[in-house]
Amino acid sequence: ELEINNVGANGEADKKKEDFQNFLDILPILTKEILKDLPSMDIPAQQQQWISRLIDSSVAGGKMNRGLTVVHSLQLLVEGRQLTRSEVFQANVLGWCVEWLQAFFLVADDIMDQSITRRGQPCWYRTRNMLSSEPNATVGSIAINDAFILESCIYILVKKYFRNESYYADLLDLFHETSYQTELGQLLDLTTQPNRGDFSMYSLDTYRRIVKYKTAYYSFYLPVALAMLMAGITSKPAFDTAKDILLPMGEYFQVQDDYLDCYGDPKVIGKIGRDIEENKCTWLVCQAVLNANPEQIVHLKKVYGREAPADVAAVKKIYAEIGIERIFKKYEDESHQMLVEKIKNVKIMPQEVFYKLLSKIYKRNV
Amino acid sequence: ELEINNVGANGEADKKKEDFQNFLDILPILTKEILKDLPSMDIPAQQQQWISRLIDSSVAGGKMNRGLTVVHSLQLLVEGRQLTRSEVFQANVLGWCVEWLQAFFLVADDIMDQSITRRGQPCWYRTRNMLSSEPNATVGSIAINDAFILESCIYILVKKYFRNESYYADLLDLFHETSYQTELGQLLDLTTQPNRGDFSMYSLDTYRRIVKYKTAYYSFYLPVALAMLMAGITSKPAFDTAKDILLPMGEYFQVQDDYLDCYGDPKVIGKIGRDIEENKCTWLVCQAVLNANPEQIVHLKKVYGREAPADVAAVKKIYAEIGIERIFKKYEDESHQMLVEKIKNVKIMPQEVFYKLLSKIYKRNV
Ligand SMILES: [Mg+2]
Ligand SMILES: [Mg+2]
Ligand SMILES: [Mg+2]
Ligand SMILES: [Mg+2]
Ligand SMILES: [Mg+2]
Ligand SMILES: [Mg+2]
Repeated sequence: ELEINNVGANGEADKKKEDFQNFLDILPILTKEILKDLPSMDIPAQQQQWISRLIDSSVAGGKMNRGLTVVHSLQLLVEGRQLTRSEVFQANVLGWCVEWLQAFFLVADDIMDQSITRRGQPCWYRTRNMLSSEPNATVGSIAINDAFILESCIYILVKKYFRNESYYADLLDLFHETSYQTELGQLLDLTTQPNRGDFSMYSLDTYRRIVKYKTAYYSFYLPVALAMLMAGITSKPAFDTAKDILLPMGEYFQVQDDYLDCYGDPKVIGKIGRDIEENKCTWLVCQAVLNANPEQIVHLKKVYGREAPADVAAVKKIYAEIGIERIFKKYEDESHQMLVEKIKNVKIMPQEVFYKLLSKIYKRNV
Repeated sequence: ELEINNVGANGEADKKKEDFQNFLDILPILTKEILKDLPSMDIPAQQQQWISRLIDSSVAGGKMNRGLTVVHSLQLLVEGRQLTRSEVFQANVLGWCVEWLQAFFLVADDIMDQSITRRGQPCWYRTRNMLSSEPNATVGSIAINDAFILESCIYILVKKYFRNESYYADLLDLFHETSYQTELGQLLDLTTQPNRGDFSMYSLDTYRRIVKYKTAYYSFYLPVALAMLMAGITSKPAFDTAKDILLPMGEYFQVQDDYLDCYGDPKVIGKIGRDIEENKCTWLVCQAVLNANPEQIVHLKKVYGREAPADVAAVKKIYAEIGIERIFKKYEDESHQMLVEKIKNVKIMPQEVFYKLLSKIYKRNV
């Protein structure tokens, strides 16, 4: 029995690896599709190369969980049969479109946030401008237009592979709506950045609204909804059900992200958290505002959002004093519980779609 | 006869005014449509106001020729009958979507070009950030996300008013393709900005490619193609014919724009030209590179792209010496001739659509 279990587990691990490799293999095909139209449009070789470098350095290199979710969800939605090779390919194309959408937003977000690195590399706008005669020129604000180009790639790809599907217009509507929701999230985020020491905006309500729009729609709802469209689902209540579960799941994911930024192992998460230094409106600081005593709040206002390691340590000390670990564990359990309750009540589509996603993130350390 | 002519002319002028007023009246309706979804999405009043100000200050205020072209073209395409009120309304919605697309590009273009004013007002990114506690904060890089929001408005509006039309997906494809073409034009433009005194990129070939992608597709092809979709035209050759005429017409329009920047009456064109000061790759400087003698070129390289009025005057002196006015008049006549020849051969759709547009711009001084 142990052996069978192991074989099962290995089989699962193999399947996971295969899915992953399958997904990775499609990126160069899609990139080639984008680039191959350019010569006949009379776009010079230099600009073709520009776009090629843009895609290579901003679309690839993420964890690709969002992209892989499309094919995983579709497999669970068709229940009891294997997906055809062509279904797998199409689902992975949509998965890459989600990654492309993310690249569009991240390239722009890094300019707006003046970030330095992304996925361990310099942000695109800070890389060298290979077409400038000045040796030290960076891409700079040209990256704004590059973000637009990344967005356009989504629609080139969806048209190439889905133009004749009955749900083509629904796919376009979904990408448009998700883009708008994410932009509203960015607007909320960018216009809710308080000065250092001003905690008036650090409330859980504000936090949850920002997270829902900025992250949850495109990271959780979009990949599943794309799979639902491919599966032929047209019922509005089914999409509403998916939203009702996936948006809180996205919020839970972002709370974990904030927690890991502070308490995760940098070797495991692949970066050194900087939310405290950057004065970010995180779940942690919102909890501190809720749970700290007046003295602690006064102190926190003095040290939050500063670069000095001693100030960062002082913030973490206050977090420890209010028992942030316990508060987080409680939140994690309650969120998990709430999501399971919601999923249990789903009748309109396979519950497995949601359990699978939840299991991917529950108690994650990366 | 003179009186009849006058009545005719007045009738035409009245019709023109009415079309214009009709078009203007629709903007507040569309803005309200965008804003009315936000409260139920739980977007706070402050961000609703932000979007309202964004639309007011970046979509309105242009000449609106592009937007009006949709309804004018549709009227000529349906031949021999009056448009219904609902057709006029729908055409004007699409016309505003063209204006919205332009606003999306201009908001971003002004950041990338570090422009100071637009349509006589400060550029959006340089206006006050009303949600910042700092009294002197500007919108700044938040305008990048605002450009995205303006783009999203197009798809909200097209969905609201065209979701049930048989050509809905064609509309979306057209907006996507035109956006991509314009982005490629911007990429060409932004990566073809030479250092001062480097004229290696000032060739007519380069100029024409940039203009075609950056301006002609969205300003000339898009509004007519939208009308064609509304008119039920589905034949690819008809759209190819339109492109074959409207892209060179867009080039001709941009050449005029460059000429007027230098020689137009600032009181009539509403701004003071700055192309010489800004080292722009204009049709004029490309002609100078082609027609000036080696001595003049050496001199031009010294004075082009400088702020000093004496340097600008020196550039204009060289332009005069090569007979730029004569070169321009010849180009204008030849372009007009070439476009008329092309239009004469059109059989697949009413030639009037193209004559009308051409007559709007031929020998314009504004
Ligand atoms: Mg950021
Ligand atoms: Mg950000
Ligand atoms: Mg984070
Ligand atoms: Mg500009
Ligand atoms: Mg520009
Ligand atoms: Mg100009």
